Amino acid sequence: MDLAAAVLEGDRLALARSLSQVENGTAQGKSVLSQLFPHTGNAHLVGITGASGTGKSSLVNQLARHCRRSAQQGVARSIAIVAVDPTSPFTGGAILGDRIRMRDLAGDSGVFIRSMASRGSLGGLASTTAAVVQVLDAAGYELILIETVGAGQSEIDIARLAHTTVVVEAPGLGDDIQAIKAGILEIADILVVNKADLPGVENTERALRGSLNLSHPTPRRVMHHGKLEVVEPQPELPADSSQVWSPPILRTVALDGTGVPDLAKAIADHRSYLESSGSWQQRERWRLEAELEQLLQNTLMDGLQSRLPAGAYKQAVEDLLQRRLSPYQAVEMLVDGAG
Amino acid sequence: MDLAAAVLEGDRLALARSLSQVENGTAQGKSVLSQLFPHTGNAHLVGITGASGTGKSSLVNQLARHCRRSAQQGVARSIAIVAVDPTSPFTGGAILGDRIRMRDLAGDSGVFIRSMASRGSLGGLASTTAAVVQVLDAAGYELILIETVGAGQSEIDIARLAHTTVVVEAPGLGDDIQAIKAGILEIADILVVNKADLPGVENTERALRGSLNLSHPTPRRVMHHGKLEVVEPQPELPADSSQVWSPPILRTVALDGTGVPDLAKAIADHRSYLESSGSWQQRERWRLEAELEQLLQNTLMDGLQSRLPAGAYKQAVEDLLQRRLSPYQAVEMLVDGAG
Repeated sequence: MDLAAAVLEGDRLALARSLSQVENGTAQGKSVLSQLFPHTGNAHLVGITGASGTGKSSLVNQLARHCRRSAQQGVARSIAIVAVDPTSPFTGGAILGDRIRMRDLAGDSGVFIRSMASRGSLGGLASTTAAVVQVLDAAGYELILIETVGAGQSEIDIARLAHTTVVVEAPGLGDDIQAIKAGILEIADILVVNKADLPGVENTERALRGSLNLSHPTPRRVMHHGKLEVVEPQPELPADSSQVWSPPILRTVALDGTGVPDLAKAIADHRSYLESSGSWQQRERWRLEAELEQLLQNTLMDGLQSRLPAGAYKQAVEDLLQRRLSPYQAVEMLVDGAG
Repeated sequence: MDLAAAVLEGDRLALARSLSQVENGTAQGKSVLSQLFPHTGNAHLVGITGASGTGKSSLVNQLARHCRRSAQQGVARSIAIVAVDPTSPFTGGAILGDRIRMRDLAGDSGVFIRSMASRGSLGGLASTTAAVVQVLDAAGYELILIETVGAGQSEIDIARLAHTTVVVEAPGLGDDIQAIKAGILEIADILVVNKADLPGVENTERALRGSLNLSHPTPRRVMHHGKLEVVEPQPELPADSSQVWSPPILRTVALDGTGVPDLAKAIADHRSYLESSGSWQQRERWRLEAELEQLLQNTLMDGLQSRLPAGAYKQAVEDLLQRRLSPYQAVEMLVDGAG
């Protein structure tokens, strides 16, 4: 039986092997991806992002455990966790407690945990994460938690893969300003103040609420025909006001599980909202269009570079810097030179 | 005499006509750009960005007037202002006072003012702004002030064109949180609290200082081979600590010119820093590489689309959404179909 078929039958070893091939971008990886792709589109992708120190990894673990425990009520049958945080317990930065908790989860056959190596090229990391998520989706995982460190644009790009984005904060991380760094709130569907047993929780919550009010509604940036374009927020306010999603701010204490059921419910509610408002299909379309565009660009650029004589691209850049060629002339020369 | 030659000789009418051709992306515009490009690379490009209500446009006017007055001391011989703010006085949102001030500036033959229309495609607007700035650079303007509204990513992209980025804030704009919206501080070389005669100036300054401390050093995002990549801040701390730029926070009152000479001096200091530290060349390289890459991508994508049968791209997207094709298969089909 081939690798893709084994993945579809639930073979965890085949799954792990496929993920490695996909992560490494091998020919087998691409072939597996193409075979699995028709089976994707069922999972609920939930991005969970937050600075280190917010207890985000513990929260992800608790959330996974809670959803497994309530699986009988049909909340989620199987869960995959993709950790793209280099400081996360899944990738080596763990303290003992987290390691134990992770091992605890890993013993559950309904949970699959995959850590992603942080790469220099974060555009690349986002693409790879997208591919990894597709494999897990095809393998039948219904809830996929994508855990990222909310430190910058790269994590925002990864979080955009998700249907639902959860932003985790915590009191006392030096400055409330941290809360709204790098526009992370602009993509939040659900806000969590974790470590809500610590002093300062009201301040953090107030800062979040204040910046939420400032940051919504917000334009989305999408790749379109090779350019980053800004899609203004649709004036799609339906007559039924229950169709408008207003990001809730929840309090949790990951260490003892306080608030975790409410978080699970908010995630489920957001999925219902996406489905009933038509946003689910819209997000799917955006994601797949952006992915096609990105792959196509990479393919065209790679094709050009492979047809160019060695050093021609570098020479064009030098000619540009020395003003011997204008940008248009350099492009013309490269396209002709590769033809 | 042709248009480019007339621009190089200082013909303002030819300059205005060239800019229109370039903005509209005509064949003549591209040809003029290519002819002018060898004459670029001399201007100091200064991005000035800030939310509406900060008095940024007045500040730009005052700065231009100050630099003209001190031109005898060699600060700047000629100045161009590129306003890419749809709410700016230069593009129609003006109150009377601003219009008069602008007219005042416009009567000075050493100042050239150009307003840019806001376009739907902001990637496009950034490209067009880059081209407009090149024409002005070739025309001999030594200081080019690029004025943008600091409302989002698009303005950040435009500000990145600049050698020196000035971020303008003002007290009492509702919330200090506004200061650090959308990562704008991460690109600031100089911070200005304008309207410094208003109450609350200390709070604004404190908020700026707090978020500055959090946001530096920061990775830069650059386009590289069709992907957005993140360049980590170089550990380029020179032995000589005077070689490290630490963004100053200045107070100004644009209405009466208070603090404007200090701002002009900080801008000149930043240029000296860029030149002595080697950052000037580095920023030039980044900008031109990114521009080449972007133009090349657009050209390749346009070329592909023009060779594809009508509707083929749209069909590929539909096949992708229906899971009839995987992303790799769709790309292969499109590339083959265009071959």
